[in-house]
Amino acid sequence: MNNLLKGKKGIIFGALDENSIAWKTAERAHEEGAQFVLTNAPIAMRMGQIKELAEKTNSEIIPADATSIEDLTNLVEQSMEILGGKLDFVLHSIGMSVNVRKGRAYTDENYDFTAKGWDVSALSFHKVMQTLFKKDAMNEWGSIVALTYMAAQRTFPDYNDMADNKAYLESIARSFGYFFGKEKNVRVNTISQSPTPTTAGKGVKGFDGFISFAEKMSPLGNASALDCANYTLTLFSDLTRKVTMQNLFHDGGFSNTGVSQEIVDVFQE
Amino acid sequence: MNNLLKGKKGIIFGALDENSIAWKTAERAHEEGAQFVLTNAPIAMRMGQIKELAEKTNSEIIPADATSIEDLTNLVEQSMEILGGKLDFVLHSIGMSVNVRKGRAYTDENYDFTAKGWDVSALSFHKVMQTLFKKDAMNEWGSIVALTYMAAQRTFPDYNDMADNKAYLESIARSFGYFFGKEKNVRVNTISQSPTPTTAGKGVKGFDGFISFAEKMSPLGNASALDCANYTLTLFSDLTRKVTMQNLFHDGGFSNTGVSQEIVDVFQE
Amino acid sequence: MNNLLKGKKGIIFGALDENSIAWKTAERAHEEGAQFVLTNAPIAMRMGQIKELAEKTNSEIIPADATSIEDLTNLVEQSMEILGGKLDFVLHSIGMSVNVRKGRAYTDENYDFTAKGWDVSALSFHKVMQTLFKKDAMNEWGSIVALTYMAAQRTFPDYNDMADNKAYLESIARSFGYFFGKEKNVRVNTISQSPTPTTAGKGVKGFDGFISFAEKMSPLGNASALDCANYTLTLFSDLTRKVTMQNLFHDGGFSNTGVSQEIVDVFQE
Amino acid sequence: MNNLLKGKKGIIFGALDENSIAWKTAERAHEEGAQFVLTNAPIAMRMGQIKELAEKTNSEIIPADATSIEDLTNLVEQSMEILGGKLDFVLHSIGMSVNVRKGRAYTDENYDFTAKGWDVSALSFHKVMQTLFKKDAMNEWGSIVALTYMAAQRTFPDYNDMADNKAYLESIARSFGYFFGKEKNVRVNTISQSPTPTTAGKGVKGFDGFISFAEKMSPLGNASALDCANYTLTLFSDLTRKVTMQNLFHDGGFSNTGVSQEIVDVFQE
Repeated sequence: MNNLLKGKKGIIFGALDENSIAWKTAERAHEEGAQFVLTNAPIAMRMGQIKELAEKTNSEIIPADATSIEDLTNLVEQSMEILGGKLDFVLHSIGMSVNVRKGRAYTDENYDFTAKGWDVSALSFHKVMQTLFKKDAMNEWGSIVALTYMAAQRTFPDYNDMADNKAYLESIARSFGYFFGKEKNVRVNTISQSPTPTTAGKGVKGFDGFISFAEKMSPLGNASALDCANYTLTLFSDLTRKVTMQNLFHDGGFSNTGVSQEIVDVFQE
Repeated sequence: MNNLLKGKKGIIFGALDENSIAWKTAERAHEEGAQFVLTNAPIAMRMGQIKELAEKTNSEIIPADATSIEDLTNLVEQSMEILGGKLDFVLHSIGMSVNVRKGRAYTDENYDFTAKGWDVSALSFHKVMQTLFKKDAMNEWGSIVALTYMAAQRTFPDYNDMADNKAYLESIARSFGYFFGKEKNVRVNTISQSPTPTTAGKGVKGFDGFISFAEKMSPLGNASALDCANYTLTLFSDLTRKVTMQNLFHDGGFSNTGVSQEIVDVFQE
Repeated sequence: MNNLLKGKKGIIFGALDENSIAWKTAERAHEEGAQFVLTNAPIAMRMGQIKELAEKTNSEIIPADATSIEDLTNLVEQSMEILGGKLDFVLHSIGMSVNVRKGRAYTDENYDFTAKGWDVSALSFHKVMQTLFKKDAMNEWGSIVALTYMAAQRTFPDYNDMADNKAYLESIARSFGYFFGKEKNVRVNTISQSPTPTTAGKGVKGFDGFISFAEKMSPLGNASALDCANYTLTLFSDLTRKVTMQNLFHDGGFSNTGVSQEIVDVFQE
Repeated sequence: MNNLLKGKKGIIFGALDENSIAWKTAERAHEEGAQFVLTNAPIAMRMGQIKELAEKTNSEIIPADATSIEDLTNLVEQSMEILGGKLDFVLHSIGMSVNVRKGRAYTDENYDFTAKGWDVSALSFHKVMQTLFKKDAMNEWGSIVALTYMAAQRTFPDYNDMADNKAYLESIARSFGYFFGKEKNVRVNTISQSPTPTTAGKGVKGFDGFISFAEKMSPLGNASALDCANYTLTLFSDLTRKVTMQNLFHDGGFSNTGVSQEIVDVFQE
């Protein structure tokens, strides 16, 4: 423990259960001296579990639907009140595709489902930042991070419309990062994480085959939820103040490996 | 004229007036031997002008709102009937941000406007392809192209939420390109064009300053609408059959120029 | 045949035998109306075979070591004399790693071998362009293309130091493309081609396993040497005048596919 | 100070004077609890100054020409002896173009100069890593970082052949990162830093104009040498264990800004 976030205040979205990256980030941020508010969608929240995390990290819980400006405004206002001032960091770890849940193929999307998934998974990041921006809720040199996945750059057939949502999300990080940087000296980045066996991740068809492939492709192996939490802390710390508008791959090298020896061996007769 | 598209059939979206890239593409495709249907949104269509293009290129016009599955289904069915068979090429040149039109800043989006712009500018590309896919309307080795802009990769402050829409559009090209490739041997790409003084482009705030900057930054100067039409033809031709899921910069070198001598000179005291 | 290159003059480096991409490009360029000089390194040249190509395409052969400024100067001067004027296109298809040939691992390079491979595979492209530039040998809107491989972006373990050479080559395309664009309106690009069973390619360890993997990963399958020749022609034609400083993937979609269904299935228990 | 590198051992190349990024990194690494050896080329070393840094950081100096395997072998062996074990981190901050120094244009390179600059600026990184690899000198989960510049992706006319050298260097990071990852669980990354007014940087023609342009383009302004040192520490820490084979932009957002409002305003009449 290095007191890396000592005195820093923030909001963490998306801690569902102990497998969540947001959950691990909350635990680690607490260890590093941060104070924060936990939030999740009322319908996604498993109250019993998140209360446990809140107690452990000495934090409060404010439910908020991240697609509702009203909820987000309330969240930001209350958080500043509870924490006693402006915020230094925000983690956005939210994603859900109705098309995936309902088993619709990418070539047979239901566009109401698509719009809902886009609002929850992508536009919510804009809504969160626009609320923070309008409320002037971020301290100078604060840091905003959203979690994303490499499907935004390359196609993974089972990832479906989440790929397009993540591309939109990463674009928001750049677009809003420009204005948050220029006007408030706040940085905005996305972390493109290895496939992670969270409760959400495990629901995707073909997840087992894919995570096994990714493990064999990545020179350092897949990054875990805890690894991701640690990396996120560096982006919240004062040591990365000039990193902004970036999409940062945290994946054991997967993204820049064309093929690994293990994979070649499988396809070599 | 090289008969590059002799015997090929297609649909061209978005020919508004003679400044449009789609207009130039229609003219050039006709010169190269293609037959096609012209389409545009009923509300965007300037009937007098597009009729002129239709006569010149010996093509028919079928109005269609690209956000309406019903309109698109009708368009695809009628086009195959008119042209006498499946399609070889489709050009998607559609984009509009209500936030831009209404003068809303990126940090003060109206989310109803955002959703409308996303549907028109980005999701419409999925709707077009899903309709083509379900109707099995593309010939093997057919080619689908959408026009995009580099704001999907880097922020241009006045481009507003169109940046995020273009990022989503480019992601659709990859995602659908995977399935259209695997299942139908059809390729899908986007062309990332220089800022172009079309009727739509010229409406963007700061356009004059930006196009002048881009001209000075690009070693070959900005690409014109006619240049873009020519490039699009190569992607419709049989010479580019294995190019797919790519975003192709057509910009006189802008995208890979960090700074040009002219620009340095301006900032050198 | 479309007379796409009618009246155009050029130099084609690297036609070794009928499996070569340069060989196919020469055949296709001839069919499209181009005139050109064939060249290869004296030591790499299989005179019997290249003479056959020269006869078939009605072209002359000028041996040149692409690392020798003297040879290159002679080549450029003689080519202009033979063809009767300045050049419209040049294809650089040259690559060789001594470390690969001698079986040295990437972690055990012999640096004399490394320097030799870098000179032949990468710096030669600069030498070719510097010679053309100094001799003012390119016509306005001429086009220069070099072949490369995606190992420049992502690691393929058996590709060894050729990965680094290709990264240097692609950088030269951008750097020289800037100056050739600004001063002569000439464009410079690289094509990043699928693994191709040329005589050179087949010599790489693990090539069979890798090409089989790439075939399964690419939605349109691997691009062949003939496909690549066709694509190259579009870049030599007048239809792509504003494309410059780009690295263009020609690979059936491999570069933007994170994983394909076939690959997931292999790793799914 | 957070004891972020407590107990970690390393080698820092390239601390020339107090403007150097390597110098700042040494100071900060010392503050965070690291022990290290300082090294520089005998001919580049300003003994008086580096001795001051050595005293301040309680470290020893071992001169080494980074293009000499003999020197590097001696450096690695002695460092392990001095520090009492294997290494946890290495910083490569070395670069020099003879063509730039001698005022040769990119289109008029002297190829002996080019080869020398490539050896010093790019291949030296491979030599350093091959020496570390063969000596098995890195601890598991160790971290190797080299400094680079965005000219590897986009052309900056005055950066000359250093652009190509940096492209080669970044490729080495990926290629060697694969093997160092697979076999030793060591990560390798490059940091692509803002233009920095180091003693080396300031020597480049047009530097003043360019740094002023970059400052106006970057939403957070240019990153300083101290900022870069801080960022480097995060990559040496245990918090970034799964980040490898990446090129990380540390530039206040420059890399993902297409144009800023200030720049548009300059070009708007």
